[in-house]
Amino acid sequence: MDDIERYDLAVIGAGPAGYTAAEKSAKAGYKVVIFEKSDHMGGVCLNEGCIPTKTLLYSAKVLDQARQASKYGIAISGEIQPDMKKIVSRKKKVVRKLVLGIKQRLENAGVKIIKGEAYIKSSHHVVCDDSCYYTENIFVCTGSEPIIPPISGINEVPYWTHREPLECTDIPKSIAILGGGVIGMEFASYFNSMGSEVTVIEMMDEVLPMFDETLVVQLREMYAKRGVRFLLSTKVTAVAMQGDRILVTTAPTQEEKIVVDKLLVSTGRRKITTGFGLENLKLDTDDKGNILQNKRMQTSSHHIYLCGDANGRSMLAHTAIREAEVAVQTLLGRTDEIIYQCIPSVLYANPELAGVGYTEQELKARGIPYILKELPMAYAGRFVAENEGVNGTCRILINPNDQRIWGVHILGNPASEIIIQAANAIRLKRKANEWKRSIFPHPTVGEIIKECL
Amino acid sequence: MDDIERYDLAVIGAGPAGYTAAEKSAKAGYKVVIFEKSDHMGGVCLNEGCIPTKTLLYSAKVLDQARQASKYGIAISGEIQPDMKKIVSRKKKVVRKLVLGIKQRLENAGVKIIKGEAYIKSSHHVVCDDSCYYTENIFVCTGSEPIIPPISGINEVPYWTHREPLECTDIPKSIAILGGGVIGMEFASYFNSMGSEVTVIEMMDEVLPMFDETLVVQLREMYAKRGVRFLLSTKVTAVAMQGDRILVTTAPTQEEKIVVDKLLVSTGRRKITTGFGLENLKLDTDDKGNILQNKRMQTSSHHIYLCGDANGRSMLAHTAIREAEVAVQTLLGRTDEIIYQCIPSVLYANPELAGVGYTEQELKARGIPYILKELPMAYAGRFVAENEGVNGTCRILINPNDQRIWGVHILGNPASEIIIQAANAIRLKRKANEWKRSIFPHPTVGEIIKECL
Repeated sequence: MDDIERYDLAVIGAGPAGYTAAEKSAKAGYKVVIFEKSDHMGGVCLNEGCIPTKTLLYSAKVLDQARQASKYGIAISGEIQPDMKKIVSRKKKVVRKLVLGIKQRLENAGVKIIKGEAYIKSSHHVVCDDSCYYTENIFVCTGSEPIIPPISGINEVPYWTHREPLECTDIPKSIAILGGGVIGMEFASYFNSMGSEVTVIEMMDEVLPMFDETLVVQLREMYAKRGVRFLLSTKVTAVAMQGDRILVTTAPTQEEKIVVDKLLVSTGRRKITTGFGLENLKLDTDDKGNILQNKRMQTSSHHIYLCGDANGRSMLAHTAIREAEVAVQTLLGRTDEIIYQCIPSVLYANPELAGVGYTEQELKARGIPYILKELPMAYAGRFVAENEGVNGTCRILINPNDQRIWGVHILGNPASEIIIQAANAIRLKRKANEWKRSIFPHPTVGEIIKECL
Repeated sequence: MDDIERYDLAVIGAGPAGYTAAEKSAKAGYKVVIFEKSDHMGGVCLNEGCIPTKTLLYSAKVLDQARQASKYGIAISGEIQPDMKKIVSRKKKVVRKLVLGIKQRLENAGVKIIKGEAYIKSSHHVVCDDSCYYTENIFVCTGSEPIIPPISGINEVPYWTHREPLECTDIPKSIAILGGGVIGMEFASYFNSMGSEVTVIEMMDEVLPMFDETLVVQLREMYAKRGVRFLLSTKVTAVAMQGDRILVTTAPTQEEKIVVDKLLVSTGRRKITTGFGLENLKLDTDDKGNILQNKRMQTSSHHIYLCGDANGRSMLAHTAIREAEVAVQTLLGRTDEIIYQCIPSVLYANPELAGVGYTEQELKARGIPYILKELPMAYAGRFVAENEGVNGTCRILINPNDQRIWGVHILGNPASEIIIQAANAIRLKRKANEWKRSIFPHPTVGEIIKECL
């Protein structure tokens, strides 16, 4: 083992956490190796998550907008149709471009990229294929995978997870979406735009539990108006083939059977922390078996870090990126820590829904006092100029004691971009009155925050 | 004069400065009267500026997008045509809605609205029609008007200013735009989308002097590719009718004659501070005759305030709004002041161009050291997903001594919304490294700032 390759850092998994950590630490002068078992850099986010869905959703938005063009005085005389082959091939092109970009960035930073499945042999040794690598530090960035609920018959039907619809060039006439989280609702929006009959089945009494409830109800009603059907407080008890189609049996509040062409299962994701030797390290865990870590992303073995979906904290790409940054700063001996209170959540449907900080239902549940400021989006002139026959809402929750911002929640395009300033405001502990004094360019949709504060 | 109406505040002009000041001071308990000589609340911004142009530009964007739809996999089989009557009538509807909204807000706040031309009789008396009003304070919010350069023949041709194109339902085959500032460039974009042959004639060697030069060159080249013709360093020496059309003679660098259907003059705006009695007050002025005022918007007579375009400082609606806020805070005896260093500038073309803080050319001219961070917009995955065959650039200028942000400049949609966070960062004196630690939702176009920092 004299010729064993020695690294300062081994990163396992090249998703947002892994590639961010690898690039940044290598740029800081560390000798870094990254292991990726799939063929492509970028992880779920880039290959079968955030980026491909947003690319497809943008095609859907272009389609929606062409259909609505006459409202803005643009006359289209002929047919407007999605060309599914082109939509999917464009999506592939976008993903390919960005995957190559990540690869190039890692190579430029001097990161050694190993395609293969890594196995942690000891706290300083990682094995891949027939090679062993010595490393001072290990970043575990192994991501997450879909949870498939133990529904009767589920293994007998060709269900979809988040992966298959990305390749779908033959739009199903009907689709049932099991689970009304972000993934389920984004695909509901997409397939609805593309012309499918969409049914969203959600066990809880409302979809999108992580978002502001008032806005979720508004969004769900918009979806319903567009033709999406919702079965809330509804459990799927069994699925089975019925000819070429899938029979979905639900219970108990709305017991019924529906027959659909496709079934998409989006009932949540589970972190991946086993199967690659991590358990060998005997890291400290809580009583549920979750690996403990500090705010600097270190586990009980301080040279072993856990970033991204693999720690199960927030399961968002931007959290992963930030966790990786914190881990690298820690590695470099600098002070940094993750603040989970200012992580924005975004639903990239049309219209977008975005929020950051506490929701009203969280504040109520915890008995925390708050002031609610709320305005329709149409208070912003730019929103009126760009949204014919659509409204939305901006809701800001403020701490009455010190005027700091508890949360900001926006339904309306482009909420995803506008929420960035809100995340910053919460991070910086800005007070409502001070934030309101900022100059917002006029006219912008983002001005709604100034109006609302 | 015993029955003279007495007010705490008289506001002259109901544009963004005036309506903001009137509403806010009335809400704070002041007795407020506002005078507006035109038929509508909202001033130039709402009636013939920001809002109508953005509404028209959005129709143009919908048109551009429909034409580009096939790039995103959306097949449109027939003709795509602007329906100009509908575009203009929709614009009117949007303006009407927002004008009524302003009126309602003022009424709800208890502001007395007087339609008529106000005249300042003394420092506490304002006359309108046959009535005289006593007021403790006066806010002068009289706005600005287009400058028409003394070109030979200008009064013999039916030239347009910013007003007439807003009503144009018969798209001219050709149009010459005199002046490459924001107004000129936005109309150039609009008429180009609508199918006109557009020529922009600019006396300086570059258009859009207030924006980052590098980005302006990129934008101008995009315009040129779309078919807009630019005559830079070119002066119009004469205009004359030639049949139904207009003959424009230019000199000296590109001496030529062009014949166009329409001529739009957008060579700048001039503050309005005379003609309504302000000169009676003998306020202190600088040696150029500009009325002096402090950072709290007060003139040398502290109860006379000057806000918005009328003070000639920045000529932007959002500056006017902020100045009005500062003036109201001052009125209320609170501490506030205007900071002109963090006023964003936006060009609402397609793509948008936005900037805040110093430009590189300003830093160079002043000999101020800076670090330049620059990335193509395609570094942001969301931008790639939503912009086929288009790129853009993000440029951040940083003070090398303390890592604070000198300026942020972005070319690419939706720059107008993204620049908000940059304006906030400059206002808060954030350091690059600290700002970079914020969590930006992924994927957003706004992430380009995190990447760039």
